[in-house]
Amino acid sequence: MYVTLRDQFVRQFVTEKELEAMRPEIAQAHEKIVKKNGAGSDFLGWKELPQAYDREEFARIAECAAYIRSHCDVFIAIGIGGSYLGARAVIEFLRSPYHNELRKDGPAIYFAGNSISASGLCELVKLCEGKDVCINVISKSGTTTEPAVAFRVFHKMLVDKYGEEEARRRIFVTTDKARGTLKQFADKKGYQTFVVPDDVGGRYSVLTPVGLLPIAVAGIDIKALMEGAACAMKELSSPDIDKNGAYRYAAIRNALYRKGKVNEILVSYEPYGQLFNEWWKQLFGESEGKDGKGIFPVSVVFSTDLHSLGQYIQQGERIMFETVLNVKDGENRFLIPNDPNNIDGLNFLSGMDLNDVKVTAMNGTLLAHTDGQVPNIVLDVSERSERSLGYLIYFFELACAVSGYVLGVNPFDQPGVEAYKKNMFALLGKPGYEEQQKELQKRIK
Amino acid sequence: MYVTLRDQFVRQFVTEKELEAMRPEIAQAHEKIVKKNGAGSDFLGWKELPQAYDREEFARIAECAAYIRSHCDVFIAIGIGGSYLGARAVIEFLRSPYHNELRKDGPAIYFAGNSISASGLCELVKLCEGKDVCINVISKSGTTTEPAVAFRVFHKMLVDKYGEEEARRRIFVTTDKARGTLKQFADKKGYQTFVVPDDVGGRYSVLTPVGLLPIAVAGIDIKALMEGAACAMKELSSPDIDKNGAYRYAAIRNALYRKGKVNEILVSYEPYGQLFNEWWKQLFGESEGKDGKGIFPVSVVFSTDLHSLGQYIQQGERIMFETVLNVKDGENRFLIPNDPNNIDGLNFLSGMDLNDVKVTAMNGTLLAHTDGQVPNIVLDVSERSERSLGYLIYFFELACAVSGYVLGVNPFDQPGVEAYKKNMFALLGKPGYEEQQKELQKRIK
Repeated sequence: MYVTLRDQFVRQFVTEKELEAMRPEIAQAHEKIVKKNGAGSDFLGWKELPQAYDREEFARIAECAAYIRSHCDVFIAIGIGGSYLGARAVIEFLRSPYHNELRKDGPAIYFAGNSISASGLCELVKLCEGKDVCINVISKSGTTTEPAVAFRVFHKMLVDKYGEEEARRRIFVTTDKARGTLKQFADKKGYQTFVVPDDVGGRYSVLTPVGLLPIAVAGIDIKALMEGAACAMKELSSPDIDKNGAYRYAAIRNALYRKGKVNEILVSYEPYGQLFNEWWKQLFGESEGKDGKGIFPVSVVFSTDLHSLGQYIQQGERIMFETVLNVKDGENRFLIPNDPNNIDGLNFLSGMDLNDVKVTAMNGTLLAHTDGQVPNIVLDVSERSERSLGYLIYFFELACAVSGYVLGVNPFDQPGVEAYKKNMFALLGKPGYEEQQKELQKRIK
Repeated sequence: MYVTLRDQFVRQFVTEKELEAMRPEIAQAHEKIVKKNGAGSDFLGWKELPQAYDREEFARIAECAAYIRSHCDVFIAIGIGGSYLGARAVIEFLRSPYHNELRKDGPAIYFAGNSISASGLCELVKLCEGKDVCINVISKSGTTTEPAVAFRVFHKMLVDKYGEEEARRRIFVTTDKARGTLKQFADKKGYQTFVVPDDVGGRYSVLTPVGLLPIAVAGIDIKALMEGAACAMKELSSPDIDKNGAYRYAAIRNALYRKGKVNEILVSYEPYGQLFNEWWKQLFGESEGKDGKGIFPVSVVFSTDLHSLGQYIQQGERIMFETVLNVKDGENRFLIPNDPNNIDGLNFLSGMDLNDVKVTAMNGTLLAHTDGQVPNIVLDVSERSERSLGYLIYFFELACAVSGYVLGVNPFDQPGVEAYKKNMFALLGKPGYEEQQKELQKRIK
């Protein structure tokens, strides 16, 4: 049990009776997942993944990662959305936001193809100057604009720099197993390819090759990551919210939503958790935000954001609840030095471990925000490790699926994402969009 | 005019009649600021700052920054909230999120004392190993826990490494002009000190020494930054929402809030805008989130977040509006390379500047989100420069003050921030908190 839900700071807002009333809804949602008969059930591949993943491909990921780690100074992972956030989240969580500056071995890792920014792309190209480079393009279709443009740039860079022969050993392609021109192109060129499974959506794909190759390049133990997820899969199998923390989480958040708590703030107390929160935002926001419904997902990192959004959370509109990730992090200790002058008046903290101060700040904040009428769910994570993070990822994926079914939406589609793309293609003059182009151009005048 | 408000994508949601009705309210709020008779009027120092700032101190900031740039490899800015976000926002906006890795001269710049993280502090200490270091502690009282702890650590590091004499030339203190033990200590030791003005709150302090010293250390032209702000001060002086974009922005957002749009999403289309959005979140969230009221501020960076929160914004609960920062960035061009194989089907983009694709993505998104019933305010920023950013900062500060008065709150206090601190001190056993300690300990059991 790497993740435990504590609901003592939520009880005054959601009564036992209300939770009881959620039981049949949770049980129904559970059935949909187990029997694979709910909306979007073609995308339940993540459910058995921690046990069912392709061992041969997994071994090849580890091999390629080892090769990349010893053959380049810079590794560029090209992808957007679910093909980006999961890998970056895990690397920052288990390594550091300063991974590139602190690393002792292995390449610097940069993420490209996740924006349409000339200055961003210029900078990444500069960071490759005079360096040995490997790239991994991650795109199921191979046609998504942002990663496709970046792949054009870095593919050309590698072929120009090394020639076709050597570039072949430096280009790794994660895409559909058979369909799509990117797969055909990669096969023709002889690039190593990895599979984006058909039954796992982008935001659920971090434990597939999509996330695993970049994660392994950072020197992270991907086997332990999968073991943590497998442990969650085993432990979180009961439909009973007393025995299944993920389901209890889904029940509580839906109960709060029905009372008008429309924003959920995921709270990290460590800077290394920031990107994990971003991953969580996509998972829940994209799964639930549809049909005019859904909890709006927000991320904060305390204590820094206590000096920014803290005022609002304490005393603003009462429209939110918080979910606090309490990661027991014993790895780094930092004893507060004594100051003979005591100019800050903090000598009562001298010799105390900063981790203990952090936990105390968390407890103080839990009480303050609860007193301010903000419900707080606590998720205790037992350690900062591959296993606990794999567990936490699976915990949230499962909770999200069940929560979406309770909300009454398809938690696995994202029909709204196409709207801006269609407009963009029309305005860019993509062949076939001529009619819409004129109409839209009039509207932006 | 570096910043222009465009409201064509908001007109269907806020009628002319509604805006007309806001005029007297805006005029009243304007009066409070001009006559300095509103709530919190002791904190209006930011209003005249772009003209009234201390020239002697300003010159000394530039001198010290030049000294720091040529005497160290690593510069640590120690501060939290308003003593952190403004400087980092400006540096990332005008330089890059990758400033440290890309810089050709001047030190790497890190921000410490903005969290209670043992691993974060350990990492920063590691990043200083074998490097020449200067530090700037920024704290009005000198007693705020996070920066105080970090100052203990880095102050000791410098004295141990260089001895008192040389450390004196490497420690810079931004604090109260007279009060507080940090000021006394700095004077006794002979450190250079800079003033946090009494009449400028933390979140409004980026154009005081609080922000200016770290910004100047990054090689940014702080004179031009102030000139941009001075230009805004001059141009945004009318109480008329037809002539004052900042006031028009304040009017529109209050009108939307009254219709139930409780979340405002500030949209950047460039990764370098992310920290600026964080600065904005503090400015508005802390100014307005009180008395059970206020718009909840949210940040996104598109297009990356179109593949994360895009689904929710397009089709989720209709509780938000967007404010889009459209920065004309001609500095970096990036022509999309042609691909003879056209594997992504994007050859219709070959030779196009990525900046133009970005603007088109923005226009497509404005139309899509408006069609999805999300009002969109556009702020056109004429260039990416010191002047335009100084202008934009002042624009938002002024808009925030007026907006807060229209909302009926004191936009300059933050009474709720103390709540968690009091609990934390009690739980940590700070002398004088013994009674509360026992009570609180019972509640977290």
